[in-house]
Amino acid sequence: MSSVFSQIINRKIPANIVYENDEFIAFMDIVPIQKGHVLVVPKLEIDNIFDLPPPIYNGLFSFAREVSIAMNKVIECKRIGVSVIGFEVPHAHVHLVPINKADDVNFNNKILTSKEEIEIISKKILKELNS
Amino acid sequence: MSSVFSQIINRKIPANIVYENDEFIAFMDIVPIQKGHVLVVPKLEIDNIFDLPPPIYNGLFSFAREVSIAMNKVIECKRIGVSVIGFEVPHAHVHLVPINKADDVNFNNKILTSKEEIEIISKKILKELNS
Repeated sequence: MSSVFSQIINRKIPANIVYENDEFIAFMDIVPIQKGHVLVVPKLEIDNIFDLPPPIYNGLFSFAREVSIAMNKVIECKRIGVSVIGFEVPHAHVHLVPINKADDVNFNNKILTSKEEIEIISKKILKELNS
Repeated sequence: MSSVFSQIINRKIPANIVYENDEFIAFMDIVPIQKGHVLVVPKLEIDNIFDLPPPIYNGLFSFAREVSIAMNKVIECKRIGVSVIGFEVPHAHVHLVPINKADDVNFNNKILTSKEEIEIISKKILKELNS
């Protein structure tokens, strides 16, 4: 059984995708800890990020940088926090979280956001990344 | 006034350094959120990590990967979590945190560790990185 992220990559499960190339994909987290929380994922399904081949690992953080810069332009926040934890889904992923203070990166903090609101933010990021 | 990290880099402030090259340095966090908490820092003093020149940004995550792999070998933990927040010190830095569950990355959680214990762990990481 492929991971939930591979199922998103293969369009078996819907997601609000904001950026994609041959190797990586970025989409909105469906259980955001802050408004505008994005996940970036390598298409290669490997559990631990440090087990990725170095070129894929480096490419993933380069891709995350591009997405973060776009997020910081269209979301009201001081910074984009970066977090790699990796216990939820056994497929390496980087959380990009709009933050205003250190406490804003808290994975116990599931905020209430409507699907519509997530879609509106995702379209802003998508537009910025494709501008 | 240079940042506290630049002062560590320039040996004006002591630190338990575990790895260093011309561009980057890794040392033990003095207020760890978990035992074995390491900071990796570019020698170029720039506040926001996404403002680093791309080669330095990419090099920083490559360097963090090497340090993390060594940490995972010598510290008892399931994974090394990666976190970039950046409100404490205006000099880009990556937190590498030994974790066993998602909750273990919590910046309100300052653990009690003696200087001696930090030094013992730092020597293990240093030895692994230089082996």
